[in-house]
Amino acid sequence: MSKIVIGIDPGSRFTGYGIVKMTGSDVTYIGSGCIKTGNGDLASKLKVIFDAVLTLVEQYKPDCMAIEETFLSKNVQSTVKLSEARAAAIVAGANQGLLVYEYTPMQIKQSVVGYGWAKKEQVQYMIKHILHLSANPQADAADALACALCHCFTSKVTQTIGNGVATQGAVHGRWQRDKK
Amino acid sequence: MSKIVIGIDPGSRFTGYGIVKMTGSDVTYIGSGCIKTGNGDLASKLKVIFDAVLTLVEQYKPDCMAIEETFLSKNVQSTVKLSEARAAAIVAGANQGLLVYEYTPMQIKQSVVGYGWAKKEQVQYMIKHILHLSANPQADAADALACALCHCFTSKVTQTIGNGVATQGAVHGRWQRDKK
Repeated sequence: MSKIVIGIDPGSRFTGYGIVKMTGSDVTYIGSGCIKTGNGDLASKLKVIFDAVLTLVEQYKPDCMAIEETFLSKNVQSTVKLSEARAAAIVAGANQGLLVYEYTPMQIKQSVVGYGWAKKEQVQYMIKHILHLSANPQADAADALACALCHCFTSKVTQTIGNGVATQGAVHGRWQRDKK
Repeated sequence: MSKIVIGIDPGSRFTGYGIVKMTGSDVTYIGSGCIKTGNGDLASKLKVIFDAVLTLVEQYKPDCMAIEETFLSKNVQSTVKLSEARAAAIVAGANQGLLVYEYTPMQIKQSVVGYGWAKKEQVQYMIKHILHLSANPQADAADALACALCHCFTSKVTQTIGNGVATQGAVHGRWQRDKK
């Protein structure tokens, strides 16, 4: 039985998305891209993210959403903007009845590259390799695909994908946050 | 001509709301309360806020939303949670076509109590006094009403209320943020 996962890499200016299909232990690429929020005020930007994610969910009908946790930047304003963008995407997913799974940036890199401190280029390279793409995906789209893959790989291990139960490990897990 | 303003005091556990009507220089109380997000996961909590604000907007048909800016706490996790709750409310307002105005906690206290460092009890007392209530409103509802009043008072000064134009002062204004 196949399960479709939408991954989201939120950002106040660019929000990446990536959709993959998991059939048994195979994961295949469905689509990816980047939502550009434009130059409007905060409410307009958040609405762009909300509307775009809503449209993606209606179009691809994913079974769940995997989203990157807020990276706690030294710049608190950046953390605030990221949190807001993330919430807009989560609300869109929850509004469509999706279970939303959260993963830290380190968890995502660890699961895709095998190294929690991997650089963006390494993530892009591994996404191209794992999903058999003809070229490296754009950076935000690659991060979103990595998030979706992280959920697939984690789900394979915990055997929770598609059973409608959000496990503590998948939803609330924090991976070596203290080491940041 | 009357204008209805919905004020929001966001929070990850309790989100206050307050609705007032401005007719010329008179401001009257319409309603207030507190949205409790419950004990679910993040997505569920944000959906509770989104759905509740959506229902309030449909019920009271406000002309605009005034919302408290994220207070930059020393605890970054608290700041993240507050930003997420705020975004859920903003998305709900924007989704209904409302202009969303943001005010810092100090701007709000300054406009209602006349002192940016006022305590919660002082805000509650002044809200009761200004809106001729029979008792002090609950703390979150009082903060939300204070936010709505701040918008009314600021709008009276800048004469922008209801003209559909979000002025720089009202939407992007920061009041003595550096003094925090």
